[in-house]
Amino acid sequence: MKNFRLLLAYDGSRYRGWQRLTNCDLTIQGKIESVLSKLFEEPVTIVGSGRTDAGVHARGQVANFWMETAVSSEEVCAYLRRYLPEDIGVISVEETDLRFHSRLSAKEKTYSYRVWNSTLPNVFERRYLTVFPEPLDIKAIQKGAEALIGEHNFLSFCSNKHFKKSPVRTIKDFRIEQCDQEIRFLVTANGFLYNMMRIMAGTLLEIGMGQREWQTIEPLFISPCREKAGFTAPAKGLCLEEVRY
Amino acid sequence: MKNFRLLLAYDGSRYRGWQRLTNCDLTIQGKIESVLSKLFEEPVTIVGSGRTDAGVHARGQVANFWMETAVSSEEVCAYLRRYLPEDIGVISVEETDLRFHSRLSAKEKTYSYRVWNSTLPNVFERRYLTVFPEPLDIKAIQKGAEALIGEHNFLSFCSNKHFKKSPVRTIKDFRIEQCDQEIRFLVTANGFLYNMMRIMAGTLLEIGMGQREWQTIEPLFISPCREKAGFTAPAKGLCLEEVRY
Repeated sequence: MKNFRLLLAYDGSRYRGWQRLTNCDLTIQGKIESVLSKLFEEPVTIVGSGRTDAGVHARGQVANFWMETAVSSEEVCAYLRRYLPEDIGVISVEETDLRFHSRLSAKEKTYSYRVWNSTLPNVFERRYLTVFPEPLDIKAIQKGAEALIGEHNFLSFCSNKHFKKSPVRTIKDFRIEQCDQEIRFLVTANGFLYNMMRIMAGTLLEIGMGQREWQTIEPLFISPCREKAGFTAPAKGLCLEEVRY
Repeated sequence: MKNFRLLLAYDGSRYRGWQRLTNCDLTIQGKIESVLSKLFEEPVTIVGSGRTDAGVHARGQVANFWMETAVSSEEVCAYLRRYLPEDIGVISVEETDLRFHSRLSAKEKTYSYRVWNSTLPNVFERRYLTVFPEPLDIKAIQKGAEALIGEHNFLSFCSNKHFKKSPVRTIKDFRIEQCDQEIRFLVTANGFLYNMMRIMAGTLLEIGMGQREWQTIEPLFISPCREKAGFTAPAKGLCLEEVRY
């Protein structure tokens, strides 16, 4: 038995997200499984480090699958590169420890959220940015980001109302980078709840516009309430940058 | 009478080039003219600094049009930004001297040609790069680029076999930039013949692969022959960066 670990980059624009759906191949997982199933001439199921939503991108998604085969990781990589569409890129394929599980073994993840803070057009990166031309108070956003760092109950930042597991996550780093007209949030945590990154981005954008104070973050941890957090920022600005094990 | 000068950026991927065609609106010029014609409620013709081919991009295309109107340049800009598709961006609109003509007044242009020199995927910039994974000898390419600089008869680098005007152009600067897996050609000249930039890129790529020597450039100027120059590199790596007046 072999355990193949894939490192993937994808432009999520035209996909309904990572997770395979029934009778619909427009998912990243579905596309990759369909190519692997042809290579191995049997159904292949891959495990991703986590789901990404429709329209969300990845620069460093990790997935794995187990297979009893003589096929080498180089051959898997070459086959995938040959048959996958050009918006799904295979950075590497390697054989790894049989116990490696891309979701359960993950220790932390880094997501980026990119905001285009200008009325000027950005035709070349438009698929990867959320356009938000309103003036933003970066210092207030910075304060809000600092308030999000640490171990907290992030249920206010979760779109899944029936979430049953522990909503406690630890944000280790929340960086705000500004480069010309772009503002980028770079967040590293030991895990992210459903839509957590996009709701945090929306909340910080509301703070940046002066619609709310950065001090409103803390109470969201104490009495969790999705409605009291900010809006869910659009998917296209979000990118899974890295998964660490 | 007013003369409006437009500074434009566009992703040329889905267009049949700059120049308006009959019964077909999938050209950059056609799209812009159709929006302007609605604004002014009469047919508007714009002049571009030059045509770009199907699939070629622009970060700094300049166009202009004359109009007897009370409408301000700010209003023209806002209207265009509102109604143009998001792959055509209006950077600025300003009123300029009535004698300004975006093509005839142009003094020099800078084009970039981007090569992705890797087997690794680049999913996010795939529309703006030509993938060329073969090992390339950058020093030989550099030598070839130096041989192209200066005032020469560039007819060997022109796809138009029936070109009647002077084929002499002056390349003022030909820079080769290497950044990770990308190689970028940045060329400034007082003008470019049809496909000149793409044929120069193709010729340099052949030099880089060792299929020809950099010394083969000079004879191309002395006895012009399109067939003796390199292949026409794909459109998608090409971008009109700037037009100077």
